[in-house]
Amino acid sequence: MTITTSPQSRNGVDVATLFATLDAVRDNPAIAKFQFRVRNRWQGGTHSVSEYSDFSGALQELRHKNVTVVESDHPEVLVGADHAPTPVEYLLHAIAGCLTSGIANIASARGVTLTHVSSTVEGDIDLLGILGLSDEVRNGYQQLKVTFRVEGDADDATLREIVEQSRRRSAVYDALTNPTPVQIEVVTG
Amino acid sequence: MTITTSPQSRNGVDVATLFATLDAVRDNPAIAKFQFRVRNRWQGGTHSVSEYSDFSGALQELRHKNVTVVESDHPEVLVGADHAPTPVEYLLHAIAGCLTSGIANIASARGVTLTHVSSTVEGDIDLLGILGLSDEVRNGYQQLKVTFRVEGDADDATLREIVEQSRRRSAVYDALTNPTPVQIEVVTG
Repeated sequence: MTITTSPQSRNGVDVATLFATLDAVRDNPAIAKFQFRVRNRWQGGTHSVSEYSDFSGALQELRHKNVTVVESDHPEVLVGADHAPTPVEYLLHAIAGCLTSGIANIASARGVTLTHVSSTVEGDIDLLGILGLSDEVRNGYQQLKVTFRVEGDADDATLREIVEQSRRRSAVYDALTNPTPVQIEVVTG
Repeated sequence: MTITTSPQSRNGVDVATLFATLDAVRDNPAIAKFQFRVRNRWQGGTHSVSEYSDFSGALQELRHKNVTVVESDHPEVLVGADHAPTPVEYLLHAIAGCLTSGIANIASARGVTLTHVSSTVEGDIDLLGILGLSDEVRNGYQQLKVTFRVEGDADDATLREIVEQSRRRSAVYDALTNPTPVQIEVVTG
């Protein structure tokens, strides 16, 4: 693939810069190491607030253009105050957003113009696990179902293959379908 | 454990209702089946927006008190417009929020009053995976590290055991450390 055969921008994706970035990473793989971070603070009850600002990557400390604040809580039926979605609901946004950004990038790289991408994600969970009432029921989702609607100037098979390639290269799909080591440290006071 | 020995509310958690809810689920395990949902729409480039409103549980359709909208995008260094945090960053909020709400519930059930709970979550990711530049590097996070600061009217060992019990019963910890089946359906147009 060469930069010159691609339009500068398609689907809002700067394809030339995307390919140039791939080339830059090929030349210096160390710039591909990133660290993302969140800072969370308990507000009372099951309500907490997280803030996103800085991250590292491309061998430097970086900042998002804006600080983003997100909240989570439990709904009233689960004895929370329902200030915000539950923590597990953020996993649903994560996979929808990750697959969608991949679809946009991959379609653009392949010269396909998209006119619509939307999705619904449904996660089934049996709370017997987290409530400690069954040792046979897992704590997390038993299954997730993502339903995409994708429209653009390509045939059905091409659009499906774009979604499939996005799945193959999705960070969040991998994080949910394969185990990730999680270390927890505690400082008390 | 009996409701009468617990104060009505501790740490903003209605302990009596929490125990009554556990009893209700013990009596009728079918009410523990929940389904959470998100609806996402592509905005252009790597930017998409999700909306949370309804879910099901306790044998009924339910709605959050408020509709919540969250966005994601890629940062400029990854050829996005940085309208919002990346999708993978939402996994960090999810685990912080889930462990924190568990800490509040468990501390309350155990009669411990908390004065401070905060956490930082760091996720290390090597983008050689998602960029398709290495078959040996996974797409998702290589590791997550959660660092809690917990303060309250209990000794170090008791506070640590509360965090540990939260980990044992965390939906998001399970979702990240163990595989979840994810089904993707595509409708094209």
